Amino acid sequence: MIDTVEVKEAILTDNGIEGAKVRKSMEEKGIYLLNLMGSPGAGKTSVLVKTIEALKGEMNIGVMEADVDSTVDAETVEKAGARAIQLHTGGACHLDAAMTREGLDRFDLDGLDLVIVENVGNLVCPAEFDIGAEKRAIVFSVPEGDDKPLKYPLMFEKADIILVNKMDTISYFDFDMERFKSNVNKRNDRNIPVIPISAINGEGLDEFFSFLWEGLSSLRRK
Amino acid sequence: MIDTVEVKEAILTDNGIEGAKVRKSMEEKGIYLLNLMGSPGAGKTSVLVKTIEALKGEMNIGVMEADVDSTVDAETVEKAGARAIQLHTGGACHLDAAMTREGLDRFDLDGLDLVIVENVGNLVCPAEFDIGAEKRAIVFSVPEGDDKPLKYPLMFEKADIILVNKMDTISYFDFDMERFKSNVNKRNDRNIPVIPISAINGEGLDEFFSFLWEGLSSLRRK
Repeated sequence: MIDTVEVKEAILTDNGIEGAKVRKSMEEKGIYLLNLMGSPGAGKTSVLVKTIEALKGEMNIGVMEADVDSTVDAETVEKAGARAIQLHTGGACHLDAAMTREGLDRFDLDGLDLVIVENVGNLVCPAEFDIGAEKRAIVFSVPEGDDKPLKYPLMFEKADIILVNKMDTISYFDFDMERFKSNVNKRNDRNIPVIPISAINGEGLDEFFSFLWEGLSSLRRK
Repeated sequence: MIDTVEVKEAILTDNGIEGAKVRKSMEEKGIYLLNLMGSPGAGKTSVLVKTIEALKGEMNIGVMEADVDSTVDAETVEKAGARAIQLHTGGACHLDAAMTREGLDRFDLDGLDLVIVENVGNLVCPAEFDIGAEKRAIVFSVPEGDDKPLKYPLMFEKADIILVNKMDTISYFDFDMERFKSNVNKRNDRNIPVIPISAINGEGLDEFFSFLWEGLSSLRRK
């Protein structure tokens, strides 16, 4: 049974301050918080399911699923073996830090190593809000086209890692990975990892898992 | 050379009133205004290009391209043979009626039959704003998945027509058209057309063109 929290956008709080508070509190608990963003249908939930299935013996994973409506994704990740909670944004197109804190307050964090927040499927608005995560990951997908970093600049500027999903279908689309990487570099000069993956056949996911292990380990050394 | 207009979101105007004004003014000019929405990479621009190429001898088409940044799409549709203008939303994730009016004021509407506004690629926010169009069309695509009407309810509730693009790739994805239509019907009880198309091979586009001709003809009978 999925617990569902109706979260509301904070109007009067300073999101930056609230984000820093969330981050500090999670760091003190030794829990790595990841903000997972991407377009509708890019494959965020499928990547989550594969991640949970691969790591569940070694890492305790919790998932907060943000959606305008429905509990489809929370049910899916719970079935895969993660502790899950559903956040309903009540029409809001993104999460902010206060909404994230509200969700975390209602979530049983005991014993967790990693909490992944699946943000609302949207390549624009979620980029504007620091929700208090350690890192921001984008699940992008081949069918969306290699030109998108030019059109959604902030999302690509803010990303710490980009997973390029649906690589198993690349021969059916006009997608050039080098052109995509070059477009990412126009928006982001931090030389972030851009990892070709397939949530269907598992290609490239080990590299993502290493990113998570490294992140968790570095957080706990702080 | 593409004319670019930096448009700003209206804070104090009533969007509903402004939308009705835009609609009335376009109806008086006998120009059919279509709001084209969809996720990043669903194929809005490709559908536009095919539409312009097919109809340009018979219908005078203007395109207003809304983007957070870049003029890529406006250049593409201009090359295809339409009059085009670029609207930069300055970070805003949608168009509102005032932004649309600002764009139309700067656009040469003389002799046009149809103006298509390609909204910001986003399945959430643009649904909330009446921009003054006669109809709202969604370009959706097979790789996004047949569950999306459940997760982005308002967009599907407000749609007057849905084009399901990238049908040429359907055998590579787990997409069930009947399930998709049934999910659409859960959000929208107006029995709207859901048309399988491919902007690559042209499948289904004639049905979309008929929708445009009918719309234009009905507007001019008003």
